[in-house]
Amino acid sequence: MKALEQKILTDGIVLSDTILKVDTFLNHQMDPLLMKQIGEEFAARFQHKEITKVLTIESSGIAPAIMAALQLEVPMIFARKRKSLTLQDGLLTSNVYSFTKQEETEISVAKKFLTEDDHILIIDDFLANGQAALGLLHIVEQAGATAAGIGIVIEKAFQDGGERLRERGIQVESLARIESLQDGKVQFVKETRRVEV
Amino acid sequence: MKALEQKILTDGIVLSDTILKVDTFLNHQMDPLLMKQIGEEFAARFQHKEITKVLTIESSGIAPAIMAALQLEVPMIFARKRKSLTLQDGLLTSNVYSFTKQEETEISVAKKFLTEDDHILIIDDFLANGQAALGLLHIVEQAGATAAGIGIVIEKAFQDGGERLRERGIQVESLARIESLQDGKVQFVKETRRVEV
Repeated sequence: MKALEQKILTDGIVLSDTILKVDTFLNHQMDPLLMKQIGEEFAARFQHKEITKVLTIESSGIAPAIMAALQLEVPMIFARKRKSLTLQDGLLTSNVYSFTKQEETEISVAKKFLTEDDHILIIDDFLANGQAALGLLHIVEQAGATAAGIGIVIEKAFQDGGERLRERGIQVESLARIESLQDGKVQFVKETRRVEV
Repeated sequence: MKALEQKILTDGIVLSDTILKVDTFLNHQMDPLLMKQIGEEFAARFQHKEITKVLTIESSGIAPAIMAALQLEVPMIFARKRKSLTLQDGLLTSNVYSFTKQEETEISVAKKFLTEDDHILIIDDFLANGQAALGLLHIVEQAGATAAGIGIVIEKAFQDGGERLRERGIQVESLARIESLQDGKVQFVKETRRVEV
């Protein structure tokens, strides 16, 4: 997605060979028009999948997910990162390890929101090691629902998360795929749209 | 806002005299079309305030805030509830006590996103004791920015948060104002739009 790649090039800050800071438009301050365009792009790429619900994880996934859900005209659900007092019973849970935060978190979704008839589109802001997406997949599987696809805003293609998800036969669409962050420069994977094997 | 009040009446669950569960459309599963309408309503109510940025707090505030920001054509910033590894320096912070979760959390916003020239619209999903909104106000004040208004999706008008904010002279707009949750019933405050004193 050209507008996103352009934004990454102008506003992203390469902190190291593995860390790209995009807090000016994606995960702290957000550009709402870009989020809307991202939602539209996800909707277009998964339009043929008869999505019934969009599932994401708090917090940075919420904006792109709500925009995709708006476009697809389906509800959006966000997994919580720990239990709150008013949401204790009837949860589907999974454990997710965050390499950035160096801690394991329990994520949860109320059972009542996912059924066997659902075709779920999983959305997240970043894909690196794939831990968050795998945790969401695990929740979809527990519900007996179908994981219809995974939409990622920025994929670090030099880490193995994308491969781990795609080898399960799931359609993974990343709107920007980063090949390398070496020498302080963002290099995108050449093809603009990945061909599913 | 009629569509919101109607949704609360049909889908909200009164758990006690003080707790209203709205997890089917507002803070776990979300209705994206309702979120869009909420964003439009906030934009209309604060259009005259020359808002430069929308500020909210993760996680349930993000969807209404991004929709308001989209409509107002300004960036949205969400305060984080604790420091992450890539966001340590240059933070404005405040401590927020959550009565629901019975714990104090530090909320933070990167300094660089708020300037003295900013006119900030604060958005949140719920207003009860006003702790979260007061924490966000505190952050706006530290930046020397102007708190141009506060937009709340659901206000529990029987708790004192609304009064504490309004007595500071800030325009507070709540799209649904609940007078009482007694006897398992939602009663809204009579006036559809509060007259500022």
